[in-house]
Amino acid sequence: MIKIKIVIAPDSFKGSVTAKEAALSIEKGIKNTFSEAETVLIPLADGGEGTMENLVSATNGHKIARVVTGPLGKSVEAHFGVLGDNATCIIEMASASGLDLIVPEERDPLRATTYGTGELIKHALDDGYRNFVLAIGGSATNDGGVGMLQALGLEVIDETGKEIGFGGGELKHIDKISTEHFDQRIQESQFLIASDVENPLVGTNGASHVFGPQKGATEEMVLELDKNLIHWANLVETEKNIRLHELPGAGAAGGIGGAFQAFFPSKMERGIDVVINYTKLEEKLQGANLVVTGEGQVDFQTAFGKTPMGVAQMAKEQNIPTIILAGSIGENIQTLYKYGVIGVHSIINRPMSLEQAMEEADHLLEHAAEQVCRTYFL
Amino acid sequence: MIKIKIVIAPDSFKGSVTAKEAALSIEKGIKNTFSEAETVLIPLADGGEGTMENLVSATNGHKIARVVTGPLGKSVEAHFGVLGDNATCIIEMASASGLDLIVPEERDPLRATTYGTGELIKHALDDGYRNFVLAIGGSATNDGGVGMLQALGLEVIDETGKEIGFGGGELKHIDKISTEHFDQRIQESQFLIASDVENPLVGTNGASHVFGPQKGATEEMVLELDKNLIHWANLVETEKNIRLHELPGAGAAGGIGGAFQAFFPSKMERGIDVVINYTKLEEKLQGANLVVTGEGQVDFQTAFGKTPMGVAQMAKEQNIPTIILAGSIGENIQTLYKYGVIGVHSIINRPMSLEQAMEEADHLLEHAAEQVCRTYFL
Repeated sequence: MIKIKIVIAPDSFKGSVTAKEAALSIEKGIKNTFSEAETVLIPLADGGEGTMENLVSATNGHKIARVVTGPLGKSVEAHFGVLGDNATCIIEMASASGLDLIVPEERDPLRATTYGTGELIKHALDDGYRNFVLAIGGSATNDGGVGMLQALGLEVIDETGKEIGFGGGELKHIDKISTEHFDQRIQESQFLIASDVENPLVGTNGASHVFGPQKGATEEMVLELDKNLIHWANLVETEKNIRLHELPGAGAAGGIGGAFQAFFPSKMERGIDVVINYTKLEEKLQGANLVVTGEGQVDFQTAFGKTPMGVAQMAKEQNIPTIILAGSIGENIQTLYKYGVIGVHSIINRPMSLEQAMEEADHLLEHAAEQVCRTYFL
Repeated sequence: MIKIKIVIAPDSFKGSVTAKEAALSIEKGIKNTFSEAETVLIPLADGGEGTMENLVSATNGHKIARVVTGPLGKSVEAHFGVLGDNATCIIEMASASGLDLIVPEERDPLRATTYGTGELIKHALDDGYRNFVLAIGGSATNDGGVGMLQALGLEVIDETGKEIGFGGGELKHIDKISTEHFDQRIQESQFLIASDVENPLVGTNGASHVFGPQKGATEEMVLELDKNLIHWANLVETEKNIRLHELPGAGAAGGIGGAFQAFFPSKMERGIDVVINYTKLEEKLQGANLVVTGEGQVDFQTAFGKTPMGVAQMAKEQNIPTIILAGSIGENIQTLYKYGVIGVHSIINRPMSLEQAMEEADHLLEHAAEQVCRTYFL
């Protein structure tokens, strides 16, 4: 028997199995043939939804629940995570200000606020944390992060001297901002923003135009939201001497990316890289013969920072080949080859509906992993 | 660049692509990555429908058309094949007496006759051929091969001295048989019967009980057909001193298997072995690094003489691993492993209907072959 080490590092198969479940099914399939293989399971996420859960689980951390202001003002129970080092706090914006917290017909970026995300940060600061990872995918908001800043003490005042209300529609009323009461603990902290979005804050490539529609904005609303963000960016430029308008990444998550850049000691990193770093993938890859990763849908877009790509890139540095398992394979996956991907295999093993595939995903993953590893190793 | 030789030896993907089309798509997929690989294409069949076309094409032979009596008595244009050696004649029973020649609502094994198959043999004998391969899959008949024998001069007489009519329902009227005018050229010939069926002629494992229903027999008809075959077998036993009743293989193709065993210099071979032999697979495998075979549906039944299994067995003798591509993968394919199969991969690359899969089969085969060969060789 050859000594084999296989690293199993999938993302979730959305709507079907979690990353952990996927990893277990893949392991089962491998062990069917290679019962003595050393398998290392590293369930992953790419910085989007599920990242907090993933990193908490991967590092044996824990979660803390806090009631905060939801995206449309109603209270919601949100969570932040504390990693296994007991020092790093991970905040998933979607937990407090996520699109999935609002039924589709009520989604409205003119009203949706990031206030709850700010409250979560405040709670974590109160608990003593100063080292933050922020996963900002899946937001419902287009408020430039103003709600979050208000929750942390930034004064955002209209002409009458009153705090403005919630949502991207309110930004036009801002007359001036003051950092006087902005939470000072922020300056003692580090914020690592996990984001793949490189869009600027405003303009046709900006937050409102590119991401507004999927958050419920009509064409007219997009124009209003963009105009409001310009007004906000102008004020920030005056106050903080930083020009967010065209800044790459400032358009992430309805402009919260820009808020971090202007008001927080922060840096942005590709989501998958943050996850790979905290899960210690590099170290765990050492001596592996093969990496099996996967995700529900794989296509040419996978090359832009999705989990299988991040894994393959990291594995390639150690000359370890990567195999991708996917529920659905799209066009032009050949772009993945140059990153060390030696095969992209669907787990679907006969004609079937999406519903069937989702129901059977664990079994299908097991089967596919078995066949693919046999084909690779035998 | 490593020097790679890959043998591509699929069956057809029924209802979708021919074996030749499948082989070409697989080759395309391989060449996408391994442009310099040596590929040897051997489209195959397993002795069932398509075998004649397959062997004619594989050996650069030709086909000859003849009008004969169809399964229900109407004339049909049937073909026999002449292999590239210009000496071997291949007769596919389904061409003259096939189930597919009758619309489902008219299928009736009480009436269906093998007479046309006998006529095809007679035409080939007239053309001078003495070396025959018979592919007997897909028959509509349950007449014990009596129609075929009549076409070749066997007298099959009822009590009034008249020849009996067509079909398994007529056999009960047989009073005696006479070989006096049976075509003497048969004894100068060789008949290789390609068949995987090991069922006896009569009884609950016999032709009528096991295969009657799929040819349109009701429960009542099955009992009548079986009784008639017993009557026929009794007569053959008296006349030819051979007991077909329990003879393995005598129940093939509605009992025509027994007719060959009793009246022809013949031997039976597993269909895929006949095809493998005539396509010279063994020779063409020499020096190959990998064999890629495939078929529409692969499951545990594949182990019983289907193309991918036959290919794998032959390849294993030369220590060449086999990969199977399939449209649909069923249960318990692990039984295939012991024959040298290192992987069974579906060509389906996302949730889709059977119709979609059939329509896209060429593209899907190309994709799957590319991924699988990358995974194997890289």
